[in-house]
Amino acid sequence: MQQHPFDQAIALQADGPDRFTGHCGRSYWNMLGPFGGISAATALQAVLQHPARLGEPVSLTVNYASALVEGPFTVVVRPVRTNRSTQHWMLELQQQGAHGSLETALSATALTALRRPTWGASDVPFPEVPVPDSLDALRRAFPLEWFNRYEVMSVCGGIPNAWDGAEHRGGPDTASLTRIWMRDAPQRPLDFCSLTALADVFFPRVFLRRASRVPAGTVSMTVYFHAGGELLRECGTGFVLGQARGQVYRNGFFDQTAHLWNTAGEPLATSTQVVYYKE
Amino acid sequence: MQQHPFDQAIALQADGPDRFTGHCGRSYWNMLGPFGGISAATALQAVLQHPARLGEPVSLTVNYASALVEGPFTVVVRPVRTNRSTQHWMLELQQQGAHGSLETALSATALTALRRPTWGASDVPFPEVPVPDSLDALRRAFPLEWFNRYEVMSVCGGIPNAWDGAEHRGGPDTASLTRIWMRDAPQRPLDFCSLTALADVFFPRVFLRRASRVPAGTVSMTVYFHAGGELLRECGTGFVLGQARGQVYRNGFFDQTAHLWNTAGEPLATSTQVVYYKE
Repeated sequence: MQQHPFDQAIALQADGPDRFTGHCGRSYWNMLGPFGGISAATALQAVLQHPARLGEPVSLTVNYASALVEGPFTVVVRPVRTNRSTQHWMLELQQQGAHGSLETALSATALTALRRPTWGASDVPFPEVPVPDSLDALRRAFPLEWFNRYEVMSVCGGIPNAWDGAEHRGGPDTASLTRIWMRDAPQRPLDFCSLTALADVFFPRVFLRRASRVPAGTVSMTVYFHAGGELLRECGTGFVLGQARGQVYRNGFFDQTAHLWNTAGEPLATSTQVVYYKE
Repeated sequence: MQQHPFDQAIALQADGPDRFTGHCGRSYWNMLGPFGGISAATALQAVLQHPARLGEPVSLTVNYASALVEGPFTVVVRPVRTNRSTQHWMLELQQQGAHGSLETALSATALTALRRPTWGASDVPFPEVPVPDSLDALRRAFPLEWFNRYEVMSVCGGIPNAWDGAEHRGGPDTASLTRIWMRDAPQRPLDFCSLTALADVFFPRVFLRRASRVPAGTVSMTVYFHAGGELLRECGTGFVLGQARGQVYRNGFFDQTAHLWNTAGEPLATSTQVVYYKE
C-alpha cells in the first residue's frame, strides 16, 4: 500500500541518540519552501518518535528561522527536563547551508505530559455553522501544491473577491474572521501531527483585512493540544472546523489566533501565530 | 540610588560567550518559586543583553520546566539564526540540582527583528473601562510576596467572593474574563522586560471559572510584542490595561489568552499560556 503523502513528508529515520534525518520534498510545497504546517508536524513527529518520550503533546512552539530547501534535513531533539508527569523538549531542524555547514532552519520547544481525567469545560463556544457537504470549496488565491493536500470548505471569511486594497473593517467578528471545514486529501485518520498542520492551514489574516496580497510569512506558531490521542482516533477522517481571527497588525508583524473542533463540537486545539508582512 | 526590585531580580552578569549568571531572590516569590513573569522577563533580558542581538523583541515563548530555587542560576543563550532583519534565539536557564549537576529549570525561544513602519490596525477593540483612579485594588486570594511588587486595580472578573465551587457559566465574556489596570510598585518606566512580566500577572482562569483554589501553575507562555521600544518609553510609568480570558480546560491543562494596552488604548502585547491544574 502506498504511503499517504503526509506520512511520507514527516517520515524520520533515527540517526543516533537525539537525532533524526528526513527529506524535504515538493508534495507540500508553498511559495518559497514547504507549507509551514508540514514543518511543524515534522518537528512534533521527532518528539513523538524519540524513545525517551513521556506522554502526549500538550504544547508546541515552532519558530521558522528560514525557508527549508528541497533535500535532506537533520532534526536534533532532546528532552531538557523530565518530571514525574511532564517532559520539556527542545529541537532544531538543520539543513546544509551555502558554505557546507549545518544551519538551523527551524527551532522548537514542546511539552508532553501524562494526562489524567479532570473537570473540563470550554469558554470558546463552537460556532453555529452549516455542515461541510452543503458548502463550496474554499477559493484559493494562488496555485500552490500544498493546497492539493487538503479538502477545505468555506464557511465564512474566504479569500477576497477582488484584490482592490479596500480595507476590511467592522470589528473582530467581521474584519478578519475565517471559518473553514478541513481535512487531509486524500483522507487520513486525524492524529497529533496532522492536527498540528491543520492549525496552520488558514491564509494570512492580512490578505483578508486589506484585500491585498502583501508578502507574508509565519515566523512563530504555538499550538496547545486539548484533545488526547483517544479523542483524535475517534475523529477518524472526519472534517475539522477551524476558526481564525487577526489580532494586532503593526510595523511588519501581526498575530492571529486559531481554534479547532471536531464535527461533534469538541475542542481539539487552540493556536496562535505571529506573521511577518511587508508594507 | 537604590535599584528597583524588578531590575535587581532580572540582573545578569556576562559569564563568557552566550552565558550569563543571575540570582533568584525572594522579592517576587510566589507559592513554590518566583513569579513566572519575572522568570520570563529574565529570559528576555538575556537576549536583550547579548552582544550579537539584532533589533527588538517580536515573540518570546518560555517553558517552565521546574520551579526555580533561591540562589544562583546560569542562562545559556545563543542566536541560532541571524537573517537580514530577523534573528532567532534559544535559551536555557539552569540551576544546580540535587546531585550537583546543572539542570534546566526554564527553556525559551525568542525572535528579535528590525521593524519598519507599515500599515497597521487592531482587530481586538480596546474595552470601555473606568480610569484606574476610580477603582479598588484587586483583592488577592493569597498573601504572596510578588503581589507587593504590583499595583493592580480591578475592573471586572476579580477573585471570587467565596470559594464555594460554584461553576461560573455564561460564555466567554463572563465565565472567565478579567480586566485589570496594572503597573510596577514602586513605579518604574515600562520596557520589554516589565511588559513581559505584566503578561503573567493574571491569576489562573480556573480559579474564577470554578470558584475553587485548585493547584495550578503555568507550564508555557508565549508573548507577542506589538509595541516597539519607542512606544514603550512613551508609556512611562502609566498603567497598563490587561484582559485575560480562559479557553479550553481539559484533563489537567487549560489555556488562557491575554491582551495588554496602554492608557491611550494602543495595543502593547498579546499573550497566551497553558496552565497545569489538578482535579
